[in-house]
Amino acid sequence: MLGKVVLVGGTHGNETSGIQLINHWKQHGVPEHLASLNLGLVIANHSAIKDNVRFVDEDLNRQFTYQALAEQKDTLEAKCAEQFNQEFGPKGSSTTELVVDIHNTTSNMGATLIILETDHFNTQLARYVKHVMPEAIILVEDEKPFEEHGYLCTVGKKGVMIEVGAQPQGVMREDVYKLVEKMAIAILTFCAHYNENESLVETPCEAFRLGETVSFPLDDKGERTAMVHRDLQDNDFAPLLPGDPVFRAFNGETIGWWGNEVTFPHFINEAAYSKLHIAFATADKCEI
Amino acid sequence: MLGKVVLVGGTHGNETSGIQLINHWKQHGVPEHLASLNLGLVIANHSAIKDNVRFVDEDLNRQFTYQALAEQKDTLEAKCAEQFNQEFGPKGSSTTELVVDIHNTTSNMGATLIILETDHFNTQLARYVKHVMPEAIILVEDEKPFEEHGYLCTVGKKGVMIEVGAQPQGVMREDVYKLVEKMAIAILTFCAHYNENESLVETPCEAFRLGETVSFPLDDKGERTAMVHRDLQDNDFAPLLPGDPVFRAFNGETIGWWGNEVTFPHFINEAAYSKLHIAFATADKCEI
Repeated sequence: MLGKVVLVGGTHGNETSGIQLINHWKQHGVPEHLASLNLGLVIANHSAIKDNVRFVDEDLNRQFTYQALAEQKDTLEAKCAEQFNQEFGPKGSSTTELVVDIHNTTSNMGATLIILETDHFNTQLARYVKHVMPEAIILVEDEKPFEEHGYLCTVGKKGVMIEVGAQPQGVMREDVYKLVEKMAIAILTFCAHYNENESLVETPCEAFRLGETVSFPLDDKGERTAMVHRDLQDNDFAPLLPGDPVFRAFNGETIGWWGNEVTFPHFINEAAYSKLHIAFATADKCEI
Repeated sequence: MLGKVVLVGGTHGNETSGIQLINHWKQHGVPEHLASLNLGLVIANHSAIKDNVRFVDEDLNRQFTYQALAEQKDTLEAKCAEQFNQEFGPKGSSTTELVVDIHNTTSNMGATLIILETDHFNTQLARYVKHVMPEAIILVEDEKPFEEHGYLCTVGKKGVMIEVGAQPQGVMREDVYKLVEKMAIAILTFCAHYNENESLVETPCEAFRLGETVSFPLDDKGERTAMVHRDLQDNDFAPLLPGDPVFRAFNGETIGWWGNEVTFPHFINEAAYSKLHIAFATADKCEI
């Protein structure tokens, strides 16, 4: 069994599944077979939840680089990050073995487990989750070392994210909630059995490795000239082939995929990335 | 042909379809067969659009009762309402023949035309829209006289709303945008031909008449004890029979429909009504 595990909801205040799951388990307890875990149940950003917004001043889930933590900024989320880091870190020398941070997306990404490295623990975890929950998607974001990410979950020695959609911000869907609950239980069950042989899965599992972000086309004034094409919308993690429709320009024209290779788009039309004009992210298929 | 018609987008700043349609038509002109209309294209709440929020201080689409307009409150939306009323009203003695206000919803309501009275004009309009766009839903909210509503569109002599979903707040979906465009063109085409015999549709059309709002179940502390059941989710305007699942309690139990009659739920799990703990609205089927 692992040491202390922390399960977090409400890192973004309008992503309802994790908030509900944490509050429910706080009130009624976790499933019986997980009762022996050294488990912390944490709501990360109470102010953002109260206002039903992603964040009050800035994105809490980008405040956990060493640099950001050292800056001691005056924003609500910087203070929130400092407090979380004190309680469950400090980052880099944390006594928390694993931080599991729960998110929702407006993209149709189903139940996605995001891992940030492919060491023995993360690989075994991913294989186990995929084994007990075949509908799960494993997304690997290991383009830089674990500690260089600004994500909240990097405060722990290890950290992963649960990312489930499609769900509009501020809405709670039963189908999405049940997927979040199922994935959280799968991860925690793995933790309860870690180091025991029974949890070792030798067979590699299918995963996706993050590529790059793709922006909406903009005109000279920085205004969008196109929207996500209806053939791409909701098709997260489906193969996008060269020439396949990507954008519908407002003049009616279709803009096809300009890449030379197949790619696997995800975070398609995510509301929270709209301000940055990000239309989707690409990924390659891999095995871990 | 009618007198002045005003088409409005951005009454709520995170409902993207109307904003895009208004901006597109302002820049590139309306479809040729509508060019002879006396048409105003208006963005209602620039500040809310800039912040990508429904409203800054309070809901603009509730500021148009006579009482609210007389109060001269200091909120951004009250000032916005006063300005709109001066320019396109004043309510009760407006020279604007028709205000068409475009909205999006996170509920799966498809392309819904909301009319507030069933006089000759509105009935003919609804029948025409349903005739040229059979996928359209007609929703009648005539539980009180037209002028007693607080909606922005009641500033005109006549006023209707276009309400299209499902679309998350702050996201632009092509399928939703195309439905909004199609319904706006249908309404404006009707306006261009109004008073000509060719626009008269004698056959009654199916519609839904608003019933009441249904709240989420709450505990003693005002916390929700249930979410919308997955069998109800996304089934806007489908018949809900006595005993059919309505809510899933967080303890796992199903709460069935307690009404004695069939009803037609809509605005199911709409994000903007979540703060008010409204789960959905009921409706009866009718003919107009």
